[in-house]
Amino acid sequence: MSVTADDRTATIAGHRFHALWLRDNCPCSECRHESGQRLLDTRSLPDDLAIVEVEGCTVSFSDGHVSCFDEDWLRANAGEAPTRPRTLWDARLQGALPVARHDDVAAGGTALRDWLAAVDELGFAILTGGPTEPGTVTRVAELFGFVRETNYGRLFDVQTVVNPTNLAYTGLGLGAHTDNPYRDPTPTLQLLHCLASSADGGENTLVDAFRVAADLPRDDFELLAATPIRFRYADPETELEAETPVISLDARGDVESVHYNTRSAQAFRLRADAVGRYYEAYQRFGRMLEAPEYRIQFKLAPGDLFVVDNLRVMHGRTGYAPSGGERRLQGCYADRDGLRSRLAVLSR
Amino acid sequence: MSVTADDRTATIAGHRFHALWLRDNCPCSECRHESGQRLLDTRSLPDDLAIVEVEGCTVSFSDGHVSCFDEDWLRANAGEAPTRPRTLWDARLQGALPVARHDDVAAGGTALRDWLAAVDELGFAILTGGPTEPGTVTRVAELFGFVRETNYGRLFDVQTVVNPTNLAYTGLGLGAHTDNPYRDPTPTLQLLHCLASSADGGENTLVDAFRVAADLPRDDFELLAATPIRFRYADPETELEAETPVISLDARGDVESVHYNTRSAQAFRLRADAVGRYYEAYQRFGRMLEAPEYRIQFKLAPGDLFVVDNLRVMHGRTGYAPSGGERRLQGCYADRDGLRSRLAVLSR
Repeated sequence: MSVTADDRTATIAGHRFHALWLRDNCPCSECRHESGQRLLDTRSLPDDLAIVEVEGCTVSFSDGHVSCFDEDWLRANAGEAPTRPRTLWDARLQGALPVARHDDVAAGGTALRDWLAAVDELGFAILTGGPTEPGTVTRVAELFGFVRETNYGRLFDVQTVVNPTNLAYTGLGLGAHTDNPYRDPTPTLQLLHCLASSADGGENTLVDAFRVAADLPRDDFELLAATPIRFRYADPETELEAETPVISLDARGDVESVHYNTRSAQAFRLRADAVGRYYEAYQRFGRMLEAPEYRIQFKLAPGDLFVVDNLRVMHGRTGYAPSGGERRLQGCYADRDGLRSRLAVLSR
Repeated sequence: MSVTADDRTATIAGHRFHALWLRDNCPCSECRHESGQRLLDTRSLPDDLAIVEVEGCTVSFSDGHVSCFDEDWLRANAGEAPTRPRTLWDARLQGALPVARHDDVAAGGTALRDWLAAVDELGFAILTGGPTEPGTVTRVAELFGFVRETNYGRLFDVQTVVNPTNLAYTGLGLGAHTDNPYRDPTPTLQLLHCLASSADGGENTLVDAFRVAADLPRDDFELLAATPIRFRYADPETELEAETPVISLDARGDVESVHYNTRSAQAFRLRADAVGRYYEAYQRFGRMLEAPEYRIQFKLAPGDLFVVDNLRVMHGRTGYAPSGGERRLQGCYADRDGLRSRLAVLSR
């Protein structure tokens, strides 16, 4: 054990710690609630707080406080945190899709845990063999979290008529997109549940947009990350608008989220001489999202369901034959915090 | 009118437009749904799309399509969008708090619109004279949006006992903080409604953390924006953890959100030689949040309520005398998209 000359740092268990860091993380019952919440307001610590004495893992401070640390805790929290590696995927995942049986997952326990772990790791997972009753989709969301109610309701119908009166309701394929980029905050999870599916085609497609973003030429990536665009939705009761880049980065410079939806993207507001270059990057990304080497594809049978991380995995559908039959889905939104919480609790 | 030599841009109404931009924003009923959603998938446009002819605001393209634009729309969408100025505030707002009567706002119309506009502009607003019935807080949220249900329920009680058995439930003041920084996504709005308040003190404090962030020394600001920290909450049923910097920037480099909560902040994971400097910036920000020149203060009477933008305005409370009396609040979370949508629709 050693205390450095300026009394501002101490080396304990082979790691060097700052006086303020140690005092701020004192585990005693006066400083920490048993829930783990800090009772001490960090702001109250004096700037010139010094370490007076170190004995083993017990540290005495110049404010008179004495803290007894757990050595394992100190080791585990010393220095920078290791970054958690991400599992990015492409079309080769087709042979190993994360699929579970509805009844197993609904029963909870390890089946639910493993299914949620797949969503957390891969950004999606599929359930098969569930009920075909309307409302099933929110009951599945409630297995792990809370429905995000929106102007579309707690759930919404995705019903496509075979003889359309409007281009929007044809059997044409839908390109890969994220949902509701005009919302703040964007729903982080989307669930889609199949009630009926007797039409040919209409397969669901998914693409790991984080994988595609990683494969973009660097200058395209940077341009898409640096350029906010606007998304908008309006109807007589609603007017939603939000601004975000197609690729959002976190404070580390890692991809945090993607927003891409050609239906709700507004006219790009760019200097005239920047427009051509932006379209180049935007179109390259958009087409890579449709490339067979990235996307997986599956057809929901009645009772099947999938959940996607709407900030990472884009969804679309292939075209389907207007030769008769029905295709009816119900969807809802939910959020990642609930899912990760349930996963963590089931993993204890 | 002129078409440039390479047929890639056209100057219309005094502004230069790119061929892809124009084609992508064609307003015809084949390209746009009446809702304003784009029916055309931008990805389907050829990279080498050219402008063949321009007559007035009618543009013919090399893919055979002809688009008729509205001249005012072209002018309004040319070039970069003007940035919307933010109204930042400090303690001088104390004399002009955004307060409305519950019954006026609950009736909708311009009173609701003006109250929501205050939340949108200042990041908070107060309602007085409302009911003291439990559940009022979610009914107010439903005036403009949707309750964000969490593990705390659709609403939660903030009830402080005057003779505490635990330090967490004393009458001590609570420093300025944002709620639930351990949640992903963080709730963007919080509502707090007073059911009972007979104790002395216990005033609510609010501070515009965007104002404080703007006044930070530049290197402190940059350090707080560049350094992700972790927040955590756990109980037997729940385990929530999220990583974010104290100051989050958007793609333009403007402050997008703040997350600050000394109770749920986890031990900072930093290189040993970076810890002292980080605490310096963190403590300066934390103390500025408490400085009288920034904060406003008011006491909720039974029936009163306030809403804050939880990514911008921090809330706290002053200490109160343990001389008897009661202080009971109910809170709930909601999101900004619903509020801004209702505001936009009421402003049509």
